[in-house]
Amino acid sequence: MSKQLIDELLQKIESTEGPVADERVKAIINRIVKDLFYTIEEFDITPSEFWTALNFLGAGAQEFGLIAAGLGFERLLDVRMDEAEVQAGLNPNVTPRTIEGPLYVAGAPESLGFARLCNDDEVGDPLIMEGQVFAEDGVTPLSNALVEVWHANHLGNYSYFDPSQEAFNLRRSIRTDENGRYCFQSVVPVGYSVPPNGTTDTILKKVGRHGNRPAHIHFFVTADGHRKLTTQINIDGDPYLWDDFAFATREGLVPALSKVSDPAELARFKLKNEFTHIVFNFSLHAEKENVLGTEVTRARATA
Amino acid sequence: MSKQLIDELLQKIESTEGPVADERVKAIINRIVKDLFYTIEEFDITPSEFWTALNFLGAGAQEFGLIAAGLGFERLLDVRMDEAEVQAGLNPNVTPRTIEGPLYVAGAPESLGFARLCNDDEVGDPLIMEGQVFAEDGVTPLSNALVEVWHANHLGNYSYFDPSQEAFNLRRSIRTDENGRYCFQSVVPVGYSVPPNGTTDTILKKVGRHGNRPAHIHFFVTADGHRKLTTQINIDGDPYLWDDFAFATREGLVPALSKVSDPAELARFKLKNEFTHIVFNFSLHAEKENVLGTEVTRARATA
Repeated sequence: MSKQLIDELLQKIESTEGPVADERVKAIINRIVKDLFYTIEEFDITPSEFWTALNFLGAGAQEFGLIAAGLGFERLLDVRMDEAEVQAGLNPNVTPRTIEGPLYVAGAPESLGFARLCNDDEVGDPLIMEGQVFAEDGVTPLSNALVEVWHANHLGNYSYFDPSQEAFNLRRSIRTDENGRYCFQSVVPVGYSVPPNGTTDTILKKVGRHGNRPAHIHFFVTADGHRKLTTQINIDGDPYLWDDFAFATREGLVPALSKVSDPAELARFKLKNEFTHIVFNFSLHAEKENVLGTEVTRARATA
Repeated sequence: MSKQLIDELLQKIESTEGPVADERVKAIINRIVKDLFYTIEEFDITPSEFWTALNFLGAGAQEFGLIAAGLGFERLLDVRMDEAEVQAGLNPNVTPRTIEGPLYVAGAPESLGFARLCNDDEVGDPLIMEGQVFAEDGVTPLSNALVEVWHANHLGNYSYFDPSQEAFNLRRSIRTDENGRYCFQSVVPVGYSVPPNGTTDTILKKVGRHGNRPAHIHFFVTADGHRKLTTQINIDGDPYLWDDFAFATREGLVPALSKVSDPAELARFKLKNEFTHIVFNFSLHAEKENVLGTEVTRARATA
């Protein structure tokens, strides 16, 4: 089919009159439709292929967040935000951002300085993670900052989305103390894959990719007068550490793990057995005008 | 952001290794992702804009079929199929195809020669539509062809999707008689719009378009040894006749309406009052090798 016929149809569609348009949305939709029309033509996509794909996506809409991560869109948005901050002259030596993913739940219990993320019977190696939240200079502690943490259990499942777990299991919000310190006790998370045979898994298999995420812990870190940080740390040694299906692992987000069995340290956390220890400090950009904010509007669960 | 950074990320995504790919699907997805990455960059789409759009589409997945019609994709597929048939040397003088739309339901009651599509209490002007199904020469009648017909009620709603209507109201399957004749009694359909404030309506308003369809009647026409025809006829005089939001009105699909009050004709259909009469003949392409078939795989309801 000639490009001329396609362009005639696009022209007809784009010139249809009606209510007053949102010119930005209109321009973006026209661009996406045009690109898809050309793709249909250049790949000679059949009607059955088109409808099969559309029906497949429609039936898998609950996985759109995961698909966006898996196809690299969420990473792209981070790369673009990094670039925008560089161009705005922001200090590059802060904690790197990485993707939020689709599994945050608002409303987790909040505590000051320390939190336990789970009960004693949680399956997994005991973990203590602690550190300080700093201003962008990396030395000025930020007290009363909020560290929101969430991670998966030993089966790779997140509470709320996995109703077998207690409400807010492995999810907490910790206020930093007067020295900017936070600390939590949990279990070392393990890696997991996208839901087997789900929409994302099916797409990734079609494009010849796996759907594995290396073990990680999610964070939102917020403090008055500072730009919100969305990030994760990875558990070093995971076989998929640098082969994340969501492209979210970054230099600076893979802290060292140490095994601690020193009795004084065990006593400090009232633990009887060896635990894994992670020390990780966050540093946040000060708020600045004329650069896009880091508070992102997206659908999130609230429990 | 530089195109180079985008291309590096695309390269990273596309080169990720895993299971054996479906090379066609992989190439198409890579193309779509690349186009969307460039669109995000060129329009400087913010993370909040991206997630708002994704969440909006995910929540509106039940309207994907309607969105595909409204943005012109379904018309594009028809234009491409027309072109493929021309290039394959098929007779251009058959009944034109037009879009199926998302509201077909399989399993309607089947009858020979004649069907009533509704009860006496259906709201609307009485309609008799009749004609013959022909081979592509336009003169050889095809007996035992199947004319599947469906249309909306006076509120613009379709049975099954509108549970207030009886099962298969305004939906029937009619076998042509030995002369290729079909005939049905119904009411004259009226135009309607996409569901107000739904996903499609919202998109169309954003791009400055209306969501109205002129009054129409849908058909599948199938006969042994012939290519399936998917089409519609329009009710002449509708204000949106040539301004269909789905771009489905075509020359050759707008038959004349006549008002009939002749007693002999009323008696023929056991009607007491004037009715609207449409005579419309279908002609179908003979089956042919080496041209894409017209049986389209898409999700359809079955009642």
